[in-house]
Amino acid sequence: MLGKNTTVVGGYGEKRFFHQWWWMEKKTFKVALCQLAVTSDKAENIAHAREKIESAADEGAKLIVLPEIWNSPYSNDSFPVYAEDISAGGEASPSSKMLSEVAKKKSVTIIGGSIPERSMGSLYNTCCIFGSDGELKAKHRKLHLFDIDIPGKMTFKESETLTAGQNVTVVDTDVGRIAVGICYDIRFQELAMLYAARGAQLICYPGAFNLTTGPLHWELLTRARAADNQLYVMTCSPARDTNSSYKAWGHSTVADPFGEIIATTGHEEAVLFAEIDYSVIGEKRTFIPLEKQRRGDLYCLVDVTRQE
Amino acid sequence: MLGKNTTVVGGYGEKRFFHQWWWMEKKTFKVALCQLAVTSDKAENIAHAREKIESAADEGAKLIVLPEIWNSPYSNDSFPVYAEDISAGGEASPSSKMLSEVAKKKSVTIIGGSIPERSMGSLYNTCCIFGSDGELKAKHRKLHLFDIDIPGKMTFKESETLTAGQNVTVVDTDVGRIAVGICYDIRFQELAMLYAARGAQLICYPGAFNLTTGPLHWELLTRARAADNQLYVMTCSPARDTNSSYKAWGHSTVADPFGEIIATTGHEEAVLFAEIDYSVIGEKRTFIPLEKQRRGDLYCLVDVTRQE
Repeated sequence: MLGKNTTVVGGYGEKRFFHQWWWMEKKTFKVALCQLAVTSDKAENIAHAREKIESAADEGAKLIVLPEIWNSPYSNDSFPVYAEDISAGGEASPSSKMLSEVAKKKSVTIIGGSIPERSMGSLYNTCCIFGSDGELKAKHRKLHLFDIDIPGKMTFKESETLTAGQNVTVVDTDVGRIAVGICYDIRFQELAMLYAARGAQLICYPGAFNLTTGPLHWELLTRARAADNQLYVMTCSPARDTNSSYKAWGHSTVADPFGEIIATTGHEEAVLFAEIDYSVIGEKRTFIPLEKQRRGDLYCLVDVTRQE
Repeated sequence: MLGKNTTVVGGYGEKRFFHQWWWMEKKTFKVALCQLAVTSDKAENIAHAREKIESAADEGAKLIVLPEIWNSPYSNDSFPVYAEDISAGGEASPSSKMLSEVAKKKSVTIIGGSIPERSMGSLYNTCCIFGSDGELKAKHRKLHLFDIDIPGKMTFKESETLTAGQNVTVVDTDVGRIAVGICYDIRFQELAMLYAARGAQLICYPGAFNLTTGPLHWELLTRARAADNQLYVMTCSPARDTNSSYKAWGHSTVADPFGEIIATTGHEEAVLFAEIDYSVIGEKRTFIPLEKQRRGDLYCLVDVTRQE
C-alpha cells in the first residue's frame, strides 16, 4: 500500500508548512458563505448565485463559498441531466463560466460549492476553486461517495450515478492555503489531518447533510475537524427546500481553530459573513501544542500521494 | 519511523476484529461512572471510592469507571507524595489493592481512573484495569502529558514531574474489548482511530479537564471520538472542588457509537449509570459504513507497535 513516494506525516519531526508568508502580510479577511436556495431551473440557479456572490463581494467578502450541488436538485436522477463538462469550459459549463467571470470581476476567491461534472463518460460531484484573476485553480472531485442506509430515515447511494475523485485538494490562494472536501468527505478524519499536515489554514466543506444526519453530526463534525486540527473549518449547505425529495439541513457554519462557532445560521436562504484571522491558528497551536506532542513512535498518518 | 513489525490500519482490506464472540453471547450491561469528590486525605479517598464502587455494583453495574487522579489532589506538588508502587502491590499500593479486592468481591470490571505511580525512579499518571476476578489485567500510563499554556487562563506542565507511558492499552474483559486513554490522550485523534482498528468496543478516558478546556472541548471530544470511530466513549472526571488549585470540569459523559450523549451530569459528585449495548456498534456501522469507504489509496494510519 505504501509506494516509494509516500510521505509519513503527523509524527515527530514532521516539517509542517504553515504558510507564514501570507498571514504575516495580512492576517484578516471577510468570508461569505452563500446558503443558496436551489431550484430545478439551472439558468435561474446560476443567475441567483451570481447575484448573491456579487452582493457578498460588494459587502467586502474576499472569499466566497457556495454549497454542494447548487445548480441542480440533489438527486441521482438530476445529476446526469444537470452535469457540465468543466474542462471543455465556455457554453459546455455555464456554471463554472459564471464563477470565473464573477471571481475576476469582483477580484474574489471562490470555492464554488459543487456541481455535477461530466468527464470522459463519468459523472463526478465537483468543486471548482477560482482565483481572484478568474482562473480555475483546482477542481475537487468528491472522494467519499455518500452511500448510506439508515432504514426508514435516510437511504442514498451516490455511487449509483457518480464516480469518486482520485485526488486530495489543497490550493494556495490570495486568502491563504485552502483545502476542500465535499459533504461526506468530512466524515473521514484522516482527510482533515492530511490537509492540516499539508499546511492548510482553512478547510471548506460544501455539504448537504439531511434531516437525519444534520442534527446528529453536522455541527459536531464541523467543530471537531477544526479543534482537532487547529484550523478554520467552513461547512456550506444549500437552503432547505421542504418540497424537494432531499431536504438539506442548512445551518452553514464557520468554526475557528479552537472549534468554536464564529458564525452559523438556520435552514432558510442566507449569506453568512465571518472575519477570518489566521494569526489565531498560530496562537491556538502555541497554547495547546498538539503537533509537537504527537506520538510518532506509536502512530502516524501516511499521506500516500504526497510527492514532496 | 516504520519498523519491520508495524501494521498499517484503516486502509482498504484492513481486517478488523469486532470481538463478536462477546456481544453475540450477551449484548447489554450497565456501566457506572463514579465522578468522585477527591480530598487531600488519601486513606479517605480510598475508603470513599470503595464505598461508591460497592454501591454501584449493588445497583447492577458490571463495569465501573473512576476518574483521573482520584486518590490525590491534581497538582505537580502532590504527585510524588501520593504516588504508589503498583507493581510492588500490597501495602506499597493501597489504592490498587482496594480496587483489586472490590473487583473480586463484587465480580465487576474496574477501569481504575488513574493514580500517580512510582516505578524505577519515574512517576507516571497510571490507570489500572482490574478484571472481575480481581486480577490486574493492564496498566495504562498516560501517553500524552498535559503541557499547555493558555495565558491568564490555564497553564500546567505535567512533564515537570511525570514521565509519559510507552504503550497503548486495549484489554479483553468480561464486558468487551476496552481501550484506555487518560485525559489529554483524548486530544489525539490517532489514538482513538488506532483503538477502533484494534477492535475496541469502548474507549474509557478518565480525565480532569478544567474550567477553560472543559466548556471548550470536553463534550466535543467525547462525542467526536465516538462518532468518528463508531464505538462507545466514556469520559470520567472528578467532581469539582472549588477550593482546589485545579478545578475539574466534571460533566462525566457516555456517548454512543453515533456520538449521541446517553448519560451525563454536572460538576458535583455523582455516580452516573448507562446501559451499553454493543449491538449498536454493528448497527451504526451498517448504516454508515465508514470503514469500508475509507480511501487507503490516499491515506492510512500506521499502528507502529502492533505485532499481529
